[in-house]
Amino acid sequence: MLNVCVNGYGTIGKRVADAVSKHPKMKLLGVTKYTPDQDAKLAVMAGMKLFVPAESAKSFAAKGIEVSGSVEELVNMADIVVDASSDGNGVKNKQNIYLPKRKKAIFQGGEEASVGFSFNARCNFDLAAGKEYIRVVSCNTTSYCRIIKPIGENYRIKNIDALLIRRGADLNDAKGSALNAVDWKAKSHHADDVRSVIDVPISSIAFKVPHTHCHINSMRITFDGAAPKKDELYGLFKNERVAVLNTASTSSQIVEAARDTGLKRFDTFVPALLMNTFMSNGSDIFIAFAVPQESVVVAENIDAITSQSGILQKNDSMRMTDDILGITKIKSQLENMFS
Amino acid sequence: MLNVCVNGYGTIGKRVADAVSKHPKMKLLGVTKYTPDQDAKLAVMAGMKLFVPAESAKSFAAKGIEVSGSVEELVNMADIVVDASSDGNGVKNKQNIYLPKRKKAIFQGGEEASVGFSFNARCNFDLAAGKEYIRVVSCNTTSYCRIIKPIGENYRIKNIDALLIRRGADLNDAKGSALNAVDWKAKSHHADDVRSVIDVPISSIAFKVPHTHCHINSMRITFDGAAPKKDELYGLFKNERVAVLNTASTSSQIVEAARDTGLKRFDTFVPALLMNTFMSNGSDIFIAFAVPQESVVVAENIDAITSQSGILQKNDSMRMTDDILGITKIKSQLENMFS
Repeated sequence: MLNVCVNGYGTIGKRVADAVSKHPKMKLLGVTKYTPDQDAKLAVMAGMKLFVPAESAKSFAAKGIEVSGSVEELVNMADIVVDASSDGNGVKNKQNIYLPKRKKAIFQGGEEASVGFSFNARCNFDLAAGKEYIRVVSCNTTSYCRIIKPIGENYRIKNIDALLIRRGADLNDAKGSALNAVDWKAKSHHADDVRSVIDVPISSIAFKVPHTHCHINSMRITFDGAAPKKDELYGLFKNERVAVLNTASTSSQIVEAARDTGLKRFDTFVPALLMNTFMSNGSDIFIAFAVPQESVVVAENIDAITSQSGILQKNDSMRMTDDILGITKIKSQLENMFS
Repeated sequence: MLNVCVNGYGTIGKRVADAVSKHPKMKLLGVTKYTPDQDAKLAVMAGMKLFVPAESAKSFAAKGIEVSGSVEELVNMADIVVDASSDGNGVKNKQNIYLPKRKKAIFQGGEEASVGFSFNARCNFDLAAGKEYIRVVSCNTTSYCRIIKPIGENYRIKNIDALLIRRGADLNDAKGSALNAVDWKAKSHHADDVRSVIDVPISSIAFKVPHTHCHINSMRITFDGAAPKKDELYGLFKNERVAVLNTASTSSQIVEAARDTGLKRFDTFVPALLMNTFMSNGSDIFIAFAVPQESVVVAENIDAITSQSGILQKNDSMRMTDDILGITKIKSQLENMFS
């Protein structure tokens, strides 16, 4: 069993911790919390061991929250750390904790690409083997990679213009976003981020809008030669971590379907390719997809652990991760409901 | 076994159907759908029998959705109909279907009070026995009733001024609400609605704001004599369908907690009394509470069925309903996380 710990129990950390604790080849040693809030109580209620900064132990005890040790003790015990701290803190943890301790770690997409090897299971699983520091690229980049890769394997991509309509904040985000504004960033980092994984010509622009459920992303892809026809896309994504939906017309329908089918936290783990947005002039295609921003990267975090440690080969790892997260069933249910 | 059907498979209908199908003394004969959409597919996926208007059977067949018969056939078979159609359609169904067939029915709070006996399990379970037509009052009114009743049993209420901050739309509501506006209605219907259940002096004003999760309601209650002290409220609500939270400070924290604890659709079924909003000057108190608008009335729908049919007495019915919905555990988990 591989000893894994999760440093940071927020949006990504709590989901990765759930998945690790179900993985037959991993043992979740514990998770870290820096504030004695309801999430700390959740972790304990869920049966996880909680590790906190040594100097904060008293504040947890004062609230009656059971603590199993310090963050440092947890990291010392782990074979691998999944760092799920907030954007920019991962690299600090690398400098201050993981490097001095020569501890392997997985980082999230909120960190700069220089923090480690940019990872997507479908695109470069094998290249991550043995890398000490791996960065799971962001939810949007992960989704672009899952969708671009199968297309690029079957058609010659000449150029991609990506346009992202990003959600303003996560449901539980205390920071929030502008309510009365759409803001934007031309030449957003997403193009570079995709290129850190796949060698493909791509530009991107990102707009941020005031809602909380799903990024709605899109691409216009031009081809050298024939573009894929609409019907051909179904076959391309049959066995991918992408749900292909015909009839959804709002992001809220997808969220509602996820709730109705009883998914924990309404996590679907897969981007939804929105086939009624498909347009083509023969040499290019336009297609949009909805990204469940909180859960998409969970699969890649698990696969990054298996790749880094070598405990599973690519296909076995991806299949096992899919099983743990229920991805095949979720994909099938969504495709059925929106057929 | 009591034969129950649910007419209308929307926000309330799908939740009531889930609960009826788990009730040991009820048999869910089926649900109705009027449009062959993803919710129709959901019902079939969930193992429910689907009944549609006779003239619409073809449109369901065209989409490959299995139909078990017509709406009329379903109603004919049922001992009781739970009418969960959209606001104002319940009374039409009463006139056109239930009255001619002399069929008992439960209606929702979107109907006028004249449609049937206004019901709240905690307040008037026994008075509903044998009533042919019962109206489960709205989510807000249900929550006000659950909170006012225990207070009124222990302290002499002189007056209540209620102020509601309503969510603009449900998550899956295609109608939506004004995004750039707060609208309001002085002398809102909620006061009358509460009085249709409890004889208490109350006025209400409702503001509608652009978000989707939880109504945030409040009351200033004045008393003849001493007002309850903050500490005394915990005891009052210990065994009520109300969660008492100390530390929550945004509605999103409650929704996030419901997601994290794995609740289907993040339904909590109980209003959350927000103890850090408590204020008092000795003869009055102010208190606010969050209402999970989609799920609060599910318990009352089930209890209305048992009361109307006489298959269970009040305490047994409420306990069984609580068990089916997991209310005791949900209340305890929320109170623990936000202690």
